Amino acid sequence: MSYFANTPVIRYEGRGSDNPLAFKFYNPDEVVLGKTMREHLRFAVAYWHAFTGTGSDPFGGATNVRGWDRYSGMDLAKARVEACFELLHILDVDYFCFHDRDIAPEGDTLQETNANLDVIVGQIEEHMKATGKKLLWNTANMFTNPRFVHGAATTSNADVFAYAAAQVKKALEHGKRLGAENYVFWGGREGYESLLNTDLGLELDNLARFLHMAVDYAKEIGFDAQFLIEPKPKEPSKHQYDFDAATTLAFLHKYSLLPHFKLNIEANHATLAGHTFEHELRVSRINGVLGSIDANQGDLLLGWDTDEFPTDLYSTTLAMYEILLNEGGIGRGGVNFDAKVRRASFEPVDLVHAHIAGMDAFARGLQVAAKLIEDRVFDGILETRYGSFQSGIGADIVAGRASFRTLEAYALENKPIVNASGRLEHIKAIVNQYISNV
Amino acid sequence: MSYFANTPVIRYEGRGSDNPLAFKFYNPDEVVLGKTMREHLRFAVAYWHAFTGTGSDPFGGATNVRGWDRYSGMDLAKARVEACFELLHILDVDYFCFHDRDIAPEGDTLQETNANLDVIVGQIEEHMKATGKKLLWNTANMFTNPRFVHGAATTSNADVFAYAAAQVKKALEHGKRLGAENYVFWGGREGYESLLNTDLGLELDNLARFLHMAVDYAKEIGFDAQFLIEPKPKEPSKHQYDFDAATTLAFLHKYSLLPHFKLNIEANHATLAGHTFEHELRVSRINGVLGSIDANQGDLLLGWDTDEFPTDLYSTTLAMYEILLNEGGIGRGGVNFDAKVRRASFEPVDLVHAHIAGMDAFARGLQVAAKLIEDRVFDGILETRYGSFQSGIGADIVAGRASFRTLEAYALENKPIVNASGRLEHIKAIVNQYISNV
Amino acid sequence: MSYFANTPVIRYEGRGSDNPLAFKFYNPDEVVLGKTMREHLRFAVAYWHAFTGTGSDPFGGATNVRGWDRYSGMDLAKARVEACFELLHILDVDYFCFHDRDIAPEGDTLQETNANLDVIVGQIEEHMKATGKKLLWNTANMFTNPRFVHGAATTSNADVFAYAAAQVKKALEHGKRLGAENYVFWGGREGYESLLNTDLGLELDNLARFLHMAVDYAKEIGFDAQFLIEPKPKEPSKHQYDFDAATTLAFLHKYSLLPHFKLNIEANHATLAGHTFEHELRVSRINGVLGSIDANQGDLLLGWDTDEFPTDLYSTTLAMYEILLNEGGIGRGGVNFDAKVRRASFEPVDLVHAHIAGMDAFARGLQVAAKLIEDRVFDGILETRYGSFQSGIGADIVAGRASFRTLEAYALENKPIVNASGRLEHIKAIVNQYISNV
Amino acid sequence: MSYFANTPVIRYEGRGSDNPLAFKFYNPDEVVLGKTMREHLRFAVAYWHAFTGTGSDPFGGATNVRGWDRYSGMDLAKARVEACFELLHILDVDYFCFHDRDIAPEGDTLQETNANLDVIVGQIEEHMKATGKKLLWNTANMFTNPRFVHGAATTSNADVFAYAAAQVKKALEHGKRLGAENYVFWGGREGYESLLNTDLGLELDNLARFLHMAVDYAKEIGFDAQFLIEPKPKEPSKHQYDFDAATTLAFLHKYSLLPHFKLNIEANHATLAGHTFEHELRVSRINGVLGSIDANQGDLLLGWDTDEFPTDLYSTTLAMYEILLNEGGIGRGGVNFDAKVRRASFEPVDLVHAHIAGMDAFARGLQVAAKLIEDRVFDGILETRYGSFQSGIGADIVAGRASFRTLEAYALENKPIVNASGRLEHIKAIVNQYISNV
Repeated sequence: MSYFANTPVIRYEGRGSDNPLAFKFYNPDEVVLGKTMREHLRFAVAYWHAFTGTGSDPFGGATNVRGWDRYSGMDLAKARVEACFELLHILDVDYFCFHDRDIAPEGDTLQETNANLDVIVGQIEEHMKATGKKLLWNTANMFTNPRFVHGAATTSNADVFAYAAAQVKKALEHGKRLGAENYVFWGGREGYESLLNTDLGLELDNLARFLHMAVDYAKEIGFDAQFLIEPKPKEPSKHQYDFDAATTLAFLHKYSLLPHFKLNIEANHATLAGHTFEHELRVSRINGVLGSIDANQGDLLLGWDTDEFPTDLYSTTLAMYEILLNEGGIGRGGVNFDAKVRRASFEPVDLVHAHIAGMDAFARGLQVAAKLIEDRVFDGILETRYGSFQSGIGADIVAGRASFRTLEAYALENKPIVNASGRLEHIKAIVNQYISNV
Repeated sequence: MSYFANTPVIRYEGRGSDNPLAFKFYNPDEVVLGKTMREHLRFAVAYWHAFTGTGSDPFGGATNVRGWDRYSGMDLAKARVEACFELLHILDVDYFCFHDRDIAPEGDTLQETNANLDVIVGQIEEHMKATGKKLLWNTANMFTNPRFVHGAATTSNADVFAYAAAQVKKALEHGKRLGAENYVFWGGREGYESLLNTDLGLELDNLARFLHMAVDYAKEIGFDAQFLIEPKPKEPSKHQYDFDAATTLAFLHKYSLLPHFKLNIEANHATLAGHTFEHELRVSRINGVLGSIDANQGDLLLGWDTDEFPTDLYSTTLAMYEILLNEGGIGRGGVNFDAKVRRASFEPVDLVHAHIAGMDAFARGLQVAAKLIEDRVFDGILETRYGSFQSGIGADIVAGRASFRTLEAYALENKPIVNASGRLEHIKAIVNQYISNV
Repeated sequence: MSYFANTPVIRYEGRGSDNPLAFKFYNPDEVVLGKTMREHLRFAVAYWHAFTGTGSDPFGGATNVRGWDRYSGMDLAKARVEACFELLHILDVDYFCFHDRDIAPEGDTLQETNANLDVIVGQIEEHMKATGKKLLWNTANMFTNPRFVHGAATTSNADVFAYAAAQVKKALEHGKRLGAENYVFWGGREGYESLLNTDLGLELDNLARFLHMAVDYAKEIGFDAQFLIEPKPKEPSKHQYDFDAATTLAFLHKYSLLPHFKLNIEANHATLAGHTFEHELRVSRINGVLGSIDANQGDLLLGWDTDEFPTDLYSTTLAMYEILLNEGGIGRGGVNFDAKVRRASFEPVDLVHAHIAGMDAFARGLQVAAKLIEDRVFDGILETRYGSFQSGIGADIVAGRASFRTLEAYALENKPIVNASGRLEHIKAIVNQYISNV
Repeated sequence: MSYFANTPVIRYEGRGSDNPLAFKFYNPDEVVLGKTMREHLRFAVAYWHAFTGTGSDPFGGATNVRGWDRYSGMDLAKARVEACFELLHILDVDYFCFHDRDIAPEGDTLQETNANLDVIVGQIEEHMKATGKKLLWNTANMFTNPRFVHGAATTSNADVFAYAAAQVKKALEHGKRLGAENYVFWGGREGYESLLNTDLGLELDNLARFLHMAVDYAKEIGFDAQFLIEPKPKEPSKHQYDFDAATTLAFLHKYSLLPHFKLNIEANHATLAGHTFEHELRVSRINGVLGSIDANQGDLLLGWDTDEFPTDLYSTTLAMYEILLNEGGIGRGGVNFDAKVRRASFEPVDLVHAHIAGMDAFARGLQVAAKLIEDRVFDGILETRYGSFQSGIGADIVAGRASFRTLEAYALENKPIVNASGRLEHIKAIVNQYISNV
């Protein structure tokens, strides 16, 4: 049976097509800067939004109409797997991502929960073999169940810490079994509601202990996926410990975890933290930890995680620019649509429309970014702007040959300082030309 | 002499041009939906940012390098007039806007201040006659001078109220003399720092009294400009009384001022109030008070008025969409660049680059919006979506033929309700196609 | 049976008590400015948070442990009524508030839903008679059910408008039956997600039509409750039509609804709109529409409605100050705790702790505000500050005897203007003295 | 002569005093937890706000009326020194802080600028000897002068880097000469306006090079002050590199600067970054880098640095709680009023009122925090809440004796997990009791 009845496989028809069920910009085999779009973008469907999302929000119930709603329990879990591989086929997307609790229901005991998981992982494994689809990353949901009300690795209850460890252990085993390319840690309850009742030092120490155990266990079982931490500043907690890329780097430095982790950067989390998406990507890139991205967008006039499908071409262009300049591009990571259809877009075909919108937005961003690179637009700007550090006193500074004494001597003798305009308005006009013309 | 040496008059060269000093999208004579771009857009240069802006910010001094900096006092004022008409010529812009204190320095007394103003207004008048350039609007600066520390029309000091009245009286006279098409009220100090020492009721009553006096005086002297209020939610005050379009409408309703005023909507003020630019324009449009716009953009991750030159094509497209649908378009209003070059864009030519960037962004927005209208994209969506109000019970509701009793009877008999998807993701994908393809 | 086992009736023990289950500041019979605290505050328990709240959030499931969880359907509904009156008794609170869907489950048809409601309203009616507890206000929940996905009175589907009308009709009848003192309209889905697919003019016209029908029907059945609109700027919609007090006033003016409505001001909604709680109260007060308050507080570093129990003494002091100065005080309104225990405060006794915290915070705010009034602290400040409007030119302005001509004449002759300091820092220090000393 | 005519030395008169020019809570010699208030708080006056602040804002000119306004150039600089020591005397404050450019005007050359500085430093040195007043910290202003338009240590112009180095070299020498206890780095222009023209990697590398040079030079000259970095997230730059405490820690880790720096935490900078003041203090404390504080407060409904004098007793209580728990308390740091009187509080005596308000607020916070500690309120909460980590599996986790294998074994055997309520509402009620009762 089909969960997306009458929906054809989506093909590239070009930017002038008015077929809603076609790609206008994403042409998987189109070669850009030496690689195909498919290779650059490594799109992934997010299991949670696509197959367990209901359209509910804090003020209203489920709106989504889904073919699998008729089932419950393990039957529901199995139906969702079928739906997932059908959607991957329709969209011609190679990857998917899931939390453990997305794919299988909890049982009455951890044993039963794990048994449920094993069954579904087996079903997924078979589909993967049959279709060639791949697991971009898996992760453990340690935020939905009320046991995690005070956190998982940062809980105030040692029994919960143990439970969380058992859960991640199993998730690592499943990741290995399914050949996951990455494993993600998003600490949905790793944070605090108030400092008035929080032992911040202990909680952060425990988080580090937990991650070290995870590193050790992955090594022990030979699971070589890239470990990723996904920063988020707030929501559901008032303060989330992995606030942003820089905060996460501080944590990884302090606890000697830096060699083992990269970051999974989400656009909407960036803006909730007061940053642009490209800022978080740039910070990650220059620190060598740009691992993967959660593609979505927020509404900057709203203060919560709206997880909209990404359609802002400025944002996708600058994101792809950072990825193209990253050593190895997106590497083992990918572009995962951690995005949900709006609550009023409740039909199954809206899931297809939304992925088309997002994939086309990233494909278009890739085109524009690639052209900016080919034309050396930003390279040229930087070479001019920072030219003074290529020779003379500037080169001395960069090479470590300067001190306050030598610099003072230079400054006292130097002629009046002349700066050059930053030309930002003109640069933005160039970006508009590229977005309109490419 | 020239204040923009070596800067040619800017001409349209088309979207493929790589000449920084050319328009890529703004073609003044290009006809769009039956009017030229020039007629649709009615661009204006803002005197304050362009000729009195220094590049200073709360943490740093002037950076702008301007040819008129060598002068002071009335000589400076006169030089700025020359610079203004030179820039209007270079940009081929027809309109400009000013505050009284932008164009002439205050003297030791109000008499002297007014005399200074008269001199410069005379100089401007001559230039207008010689060039055909026009005054989109003028206004009175009642926020810079320390006498307005507690407000102007909403001051706690009756002497200041009187002074403000005298100042606006003069400004209305000058507006009439120069044939201003509009007169703007922006209440830079009409607001409060804290309710702890504020008589809110008295201050708002006084504001209404002031505006009624202005209406009366304009009528008395036969100044028929459109009066505009420009909403802003905060900054410099903690709370500004004309918070947003809706707040201003409530005020105008309460004090029977609605027949006399329209609104001047500024993009950055909209976002500071928690709204999109297009929201404020739509609210104004459906209330019949869309008068003019202050074209700029804010940074939604920053909490103050950044007054950047507008370059976001989404925003200019949706703004132009509202204007095109407004009865009479922008009417006697225009597109005034209430925008400043970034502090690091301090060369005179940056002023030219910035206006090119903004004018091209609005021209491109006009093109895209016009095509969306020609293709009936949004019209078609609305007709389908709200079709149920065209007949049956829906038509009864709209026509005033329904009551709770008749609607209950209908609802009790009605079959289960079926809603249709809002299709927002697909609609956004269409917008991206238009922005890329037009 | 008891749903709050071992919880005594909460009594006033005074500010030094360390009994967690006692009031420290709220002494119901203590007379303040001529009325008892009970009369001033008219506390109400909110049915939804207290009896249907689960502790779930967008990232996690129910945590609350409640005695009524063992039931379902109408049995659950009946158990909650028992729990409600038990909690009112424990807290010695006189009022409660509910949405229709809080108290009874929907059936398969509107007829069945209404029948369910009738049963529970009967049960509530009996308890009210037996205990003397009163209904502060009721309202209709038109946001949870997916039929309202596009709005209720502002839906794009006429069938939904009719359904909403039937629902409010029933709610008005129940309000009358239970002697509700007010009836509240909170438009949880009256707003938009995007202007791209919204007919803003039609939606607002329809909202006005709906409210006129409600006014007419209440009159028809002789339901004389005060009608209240509760503003909120966003969430769940991206934009809510009743954005804030001023926006709501503009709407009421435009559609001639002002004589029929007052406002129910919620602290957290105020701050989401960019205002202080006291600002929204002051705006309501000076426009004669301060009807009731939803007592809670938000976290200003978070961008969503956290609905915390109110504990900030600055906020409760300034809120009570506005209420004490309002003509008739809170009138037929009251202080309704539209607040939820934190997700980690999941025990039944936390509900009691939370209400104690909130009631004490408002009682303390009442004490401090009353003392500020008795000592004429703010009155004295305003009399001095605005003294210039009591005579001379200021009195002329206020009396309507001034014009731009007379004011200009005055200003031209006037001596240099001297302003007085606003003294805000000193005023804040006084407030701190009162909060510490009262 | 006197710059604060008729202003007496401020004495402690107790909480009931209605003398505006008296302390109500700050009793310098009162012993709290074994130290005097004076020793705990180490108050400092900020030279820039107090003596160079004008009351101007982006929309208006100077309002402040100051006795030294009659002077200019070096005469002005000298008068300000006199005013500073007069105010320190009046307030009985022991410390002050300055930027180099606060105390002396720039000359035409760096040589002349340095000569000006030397003169004023000499004058200050004499006053310090005569009065016993001390320099809490000094710093270099590298943000006001237009040469720093693109940054100082992170400029795109190597000549500017050299100039900045010379400037800090001089400031370190002056710090040593005056016995400064700390030296502060606040990077007012160390950030970016846009990534479109920024080489983020080079700029951050250069910032690290600069700080290493500063460390080396201080060591070379034997200046043993504590080096402090002051985080701020934005303003004046769109993004400031020292965004918050965690970001700064990541930077210090990466560039091996951590042993040489602590942090100077400012309340308003914390909230601009999306954090509470106490969060930034706690993060600093648990990382051993809590060095000093800039005492002020922001308006959380405004998006810029309002630098208000601190009066929120919740904030001062929680700040003092962190300081009291910090090893060594505030240590060599202090409580520096980086706060400005509101623009409408323009009289000299407002400076005195404002400092009284802030000092009393901190003294009151100290009293409340000390009592919370004496009564072990929070200690008791934490001991209970985290008790499970004191023994059994929890102790194994903390001691490093657990692994995913041992924890899984434990979890599989463990009985169902039971969590305890976090009791936050009750804890907040306790805080209110302490604030009202202490």
